[in-house]
Amino acid sequence: MRASNRNADELRPIEFIRSYTKHAEGSVLVKCGDTHVICNASIEENVPSFLKGKGQGWVTAEYGMLPRSTSSRMGRESSRGKQSGRTQEIQRLIGRSLRAIIDLKKLGERTIFIDCDVIQADGGTRTASISGSYVALHDAIEFLLSNKKITESPIIDSIAAISAGIKGADILLDLDYSEDSECDTDMNFVMTGKGSFVEIQGTAEGIPFTKDEMDQLTNVASKGIQSIINIQSEALDKKP
Amino acid sequence: MRASNRNADELRPIEFIRSYTKHAEGSVLVKCGDTHVICNASIEENVPSFLKGKGQGWVTAEYGMLPRSTSSRMGRESSRGKQSGRTQEIQRLIGRSLRAIIDLKKLGERTIFIDCDVIQADGGTRTASISGSYVALHDAIEFLLSNKKITESPIIDSIAAISAGIKGADILLDLDYSEDSECDTDMNFVMTGKGSFVEIQGTAEGIPFTKDEMDQLTNVASKGIQSIINIQSEALDKKP
Amino acid sequence: MRASNRNADELRPIEFIRSYTKHAEGSVLVKCGDTHVICNASIEENVPSFLKGKGQGWVTAEYGMLPRSTSSRMGRESSRGKQSGRTQEIQRLIGRSLRAIIDLKKLGERTIFIDCDVIQADGGTRTASISGSYVALHDAIEFLLSNKKITESPIIDSIAAISAGIKGADILLDLDYSEDSECDTDMNFVMTGKGSFVEIQGTAEGIPFTKDEMDQLTNVASKGIQSIINIQSEALDKKP
Amino acid sequence: MRASNRNADELRPIEFIRSYTKHAEGSVLVKCGDTHVICNASIEENVPSFLKGKGQGWVTAEYGMLPRSTSSRMGRESSRGKQSGRTQEIQRLIGRSLRAIIDLKKLGERTIFIDCDVIQADGGTRTASISGSYVALHDAIEFLLSNKKITESPIIDSIAAISAGIKGADILLDLDYSEDSECDTDMNFVMTGKGSFVEIQGTAEGIPFTKDEMDQLTNVASKGIQSIINIQSEALDKKP
Amino acid sequence: MRASNRNADELRPIEFIRSYTKHAEGSVLVKCGDTHVICNASIEENVPSFLKGKGQGWVTAEYGMLPRSTSSRMGRESSRGKQSGRTQEIQRLIGRSLRAIIDLKKLGERTIFIDCDVIQADGGTRTASISGSYVALHDAIEFLLSNKKITESPIIDSIAAISAGIKGADILLDLDYSEDSECDTDMNFVMTGKGSFVEIQGTAEGIPFTKDEMDQLTNVASKGIQSIINIQSEALDKKP
Amino acid sequence: MRASNRNADELRPIEFIRSYTKHAEGSVLVKCGDTHVICNASIEENVPSFLKGKGQGWVTAEYGMLPRSTSSRMGRESSRGKQSGRTQEIQRLIGRSLRAIIDLKKLGERTIFIDCDVIQADGGTRTASISGSYVALHDAIEFLLSNKKITESPIIDSIAAISAGIKGADILLDLDYSEDSECDTDMNFVMTGKGSFVEIQGTAEGIPFTKDEMDQLTNVASKGIQSIINIQSEALDKKP
Repeated sequence: MRASNRNADELRPIEFIRSYTKHAEGSVLVKCGDTHVICNASIEENVPSFLKGKGQGWVTAEYGMLPRSTSSRMGRESSRGKQSGRTQEIQRLIGRSLRAIIDLKKLGERTIFIDCDVIQADGGTRTASISGSYVALHDAIEFLLSNKKITESPIIDSIAAISAGIKGADILLDLDYSEDSECDTDMNFVMTGKGSFVEIQGTAEGIPFTKDEMDQLTNVASKGIQSIINIQSEALDKKP
Repeated sequence: MRASNRNADELRPIEFIRSYTKHAEGSVLVKCGDTHVICNASIEENVPSFLKGKGQGWVTAEYGMLPRSTSSRMGRESSRGKQSGRTQEIQRLIGRSLRAIIDLKKLGERTIFIDCDVIQADGGTRTASISGSYVALHDAIEFLLSNKKITESPIIDSIAAISAGIKGADILLDLDYSEDSECDTDMNFVMTGKGSFVEIQGTAEGIPFTKDEMDQLTNVASKGIQSIINIQSEALDKKP
Repeated sequence: MRASNRNADELRPIEFIRSYTKHAEGSVLVKCGDTHVICNASIEENVPSFLKGKGQGWVTAEYGMLPRSTSSRMGRESSRGKQSGRTQEIQRLIGRSLRAIIDLKKLGERTIFIDCDVIQADGGTRTASISGSYVALHDAIEFLLSNKKITESPIIDSIAAISAGIKGADILLDLDYSEDSECDTDMNFVMTGKGSFVEIQGTAEGIPFTKDEMDQLTNVASKGIQSIINIQSEALDKKP
Repeated sequence: MRASNRNADELRPIEFIRSYTKHAEGSVLVKCGDTHVICNASIEENVPSFLKGKGQGWVTAEYGMLPRSTSSRMGRESSRGKQSGRTQEIQRLIGRSLRAIIDLKKLGERTIFIDCDVIQADGGTRTASISGSYVALHDAIEFLLSNKKITESPIIDSIAAISAGIKGADILLDLDYSEDSECDTDMNFVMTGKGSFVEIQGTAEGIPFTKDEMDQLTNVASKGIQSIINIQSEALDKKP
Repeated sequence: MRASNRNADELRPIEFIRSYTKHAEGSVLVKCGDTHVICNASIEENVPSFLKGKGQGWVTAEYGMLPRSTSSRMGRESSRGKQSGRTQEIQRLIGRSLRAIIDLKKLGERTIFIDCDVIQADGGTRTASISGSYVALHDAIEFLLSNKKITESPIIDSIAAISAGIKGADILLDLDYSEDSECDTDMNFVMTGKGSFVEIQGTAEGIPFTKDEMDQLTNVASKGIQSIINIQSEALDKKP
Repeated sequence: MRASNRNADELRPIEFIRSYTKHAEGSVLVKCGDTHVICNASIEENVPSFLKGKGQGWVTAEYGMLPRSTSSRMGRESSRGKQSGRTQEIQRLIGRSLRAIIDLKKLGERTIFIDCDVIQADGGTRTASISGSYVALHDAIEFLLSNKKITESPIIDSIAAISAGIKGADILLDLDYSEDSECDTDMNFVMTGKGSFVEIQGTAEGIPFTKDEMDQLTNVASKGIQSIINIQSEALDKKP
């Protein structure tokens, strides 16, 4: 039994609160245990210059953490004047993941900006951001459909993400911050509702891992993502 | 009657939600109508270099807006690589205001960082930030007292802030975003619980204002601030 | 009697030297006691992108201090790679103040840049900048009129600025640097020739101030600004 | 047969030229087909501040591309004033990978900087950088041993990296630039000489991939890395 | 005869106004025709880190232009966030030149900052800066001597600078802005009072120049610098 | 005899390796003793905005050093976020030098970027960069001619560069790093094949230099440059 009173293959409670703020076309507060991220999807009626006139849209993401989302205060990136490598790595991952389930031609010449802002962090902020952003993106697409900006949804599939790790002899699903620090290996998985992989990122912080361990991590993560996809689906079935 | 169904001298509903996030020593979500700001107070056991060895502490503030806290998406300051003049002006104001009611000697050689992050904006984010930060600062001081880091509270007085404006012939209290855009004059007031002024900033965006108008603005704002101070006090009376 | 041998409500000697440098359309060296600021007004035949095609002009300001304008040398902002919050706050104030007395439609689609560069500082650089910039702006407008770029002056009113402060029991006009450091409250006033207010900014650095003190500060500042407006007017009456 | 005349599971010719430049303690030019990277290892007798006094060393990496290492010229990052997200992602990956095979305690309180500079790019620059950096790191460690700075090698294992991808129905090893652009999925593998995984990063640029495809990619990459490890070993057996 | 009514080998009127601003230990306004530069020398009682504990001082320079010192307004470097290559080139030249005539050991462990700020430009700002900075530096050294901080002057020689150019068949001394733009070759000379060279920088903007032309330029510049050194000397003979 | 076993007026062995990398239109590795610089010339079919529509082309240069090209590791400029003054000075010099031998009208509306990247440094990197860049530029022009983009070569003359210095009583040609550090005076010369001067930059780091010494430096450098021009010419006679 884990410190958080969970089984090894058990997710933290996950919740998607839609229409969380009033301005964004899609606005979701995702809570994965004590990790809370605001995911806002904003529609802009233009595309980056490298796509001008190509008859397709774009989806991109930015990520940030409030300075005191963490247990000790981090310097504010706007004040230091640059985004860290970690921030850029995460926002590139979120953007790539969401583009994988959008038909950019059907989106038309517009951009959807996904802003993921962590207001409280306890491990797994990047995977929570992806899972929450899918719901926000879905609501932004609904906005386009109901406003007759597009007639057909460009969403090809659903998408969600989760981490899994190896701690000693255990394969753990959905690591919280204290577990993440103690794991030898930490893998992040991004998968579609149909069960294919969009991203896999595994890092051995301690002892390198074997093919067999990788298979076990993949297995437990696949099941976890399927659960999240179901919870996303339930959240989207409700009136926003 | 105003668009928001308020009288000219009526505040928007204001609420202080304490212990809003789990890591900060003081954490408050302040809601002034549709303006929502997270105010986190973080304690660090050191002081800026210009205060080293002077036997006193420091209180400073940083301010930010989520990119989609506003009706159209603003660029992220960390991505642009610098804070705007407006951001810096506001965070300097918040810091000065809070230092006015703290005895920095009694605080000891430590710094309290106030982070004000606007998650939804509808006018008055700087005044809401000050009013909310007072509550967060209060909780951080309580943390120091209950952990025996200090034996006497360095808080001298309470503090809150509000805007007032001139729209045509009307003197309006607590402007929302649409009113703010239409006012000829917009003034921000920061006052203590004892009724003195800490900051006054008035700007004529349209027709310059007279001494008589300034007096009316000051009058309505003073009453408004007294109400906010009462609501802060009630919020602080509850168990966090 | 003050250290500078002035009465409490007495201005420092103020002087406007026009045509101070040869390239700018309006170029003024303003001297307020030992505070000396070069105010240059430059005309450019375009407008910022947010005004393109709107049939109106723009007035904006930038502010800087020579590194050794102050008693100890300050780092050069171009070398540090960014303008301080104070610098941005001041240049935003100067720009807003001047726009308040210009009919931007009558200016036509052009921009007037005001550059205020402090070559010697002894308190009150922002208010001296505003008072001096008005004279430089006036000369730039004269340039446009005499070159038939515009047929009617867009200047609606004159404008000047001054500080006042509370030091112990005294209300002092036009603070020099040493007085500014010792005041409990420091207020800056920007007023038009017709006697209305464009900006009021008051800060209690020490003891918060009362409504009665604010009234006294306002009163002494109003008289001071009227004197400056007369001196500006005399300076402008001379052949440049 | 591939455009480069290789079988699907065939590496490009790979070569490690040691002592490539004269100043660095370890200096290797690695050539993987037309991808050429200079990997320099520099020893500095201090550690980053977060490690001061902890009795251990550090290994970190920086990565850059010459502006015309690519088929069309890229802007120089030093001239643009910041490193791209891609650059930071790669240099973080290189650093993490090398730290996985070093016993930092045995290294002592010193830092080894790995600089990977791409002078010609044709796909796989990050994996070539890791494989080449291992050889440079090895030579830097030899320098420390032969200069009696350390008495025991901190190298735990060897390390190398390779990419594999899915192009239509084919699983391809060691993608060149044109193949990389056409693949649906691109995975990078970092493995030790003993056959365990240090990093796995897989991205579906087109169609998401299945568990079975992942297994095939892993299989072909494992064999490829074993070959590179052998070639590294031969290169290190020669007199530098 | 030149547009400025000068002979080919004639300097513009040059003037050194000492004690120009009140804070700097040495403060000079140098006027070379219409080129006006404020040269301030500031003493700080510390040295850059690379000189700590070496028992010697340092002299360094920074250079800037007011935005409207030129005929059309230039962007402010602090606002753009970086100094241009030209600015850095000039300030490095000024610093090197002044260090050439200072015995840094005799200066003691302190730094003299030279700030050259161009308030009006008409060609030759870098040479005017050097000539004016020598006078400011001299006054700062006098300050150290009269305050008993040092007992012996570290000044080894005097120094001044001038430009010369080739325009068609003419060798012209001390180019103004319009001449500078039309010259095929522009050379800047920095020489000591004793007649040796500290810096020579010659650039062919048009037709490359010959050894014979270089000799003529050197000859005319040497005489010009001797005249400036005399004028500096006269200025320094007066009570400041 | 010098440490490098050369006579005072003897060049280091110099070699131009053409077609060094595969993407650039002109790519040269120049070796001057232990100083090795990659000079890449890249053609882009556009011009900087200040030349748009003027019917002429542009040649510009950028310069960088690999962090460990030097005997101790230098910080990476892209990581520090700005180019040093030295870097900017050198790249401006390279660009000016090459433009001196190009008829920009004949080049047509296109830009040639010269990238000089030092992979190993032992003094004289700027002069080696100029000499090598001429060969790379030549190959890029050949590319334009053979692809019928231009019909006539815009190259007016050849160009090369060398340093010379005064060490005690000796006049030394082509200083290596250790000599450069010990010289009182260091001069860099850029000359055309026809024997005229394009740039002369001389600096007295120690004792100022006399006209006679300058003549000797010029003399020895002129001969050295003539030798380099011959070696360039031989390199260009070979099939690339």
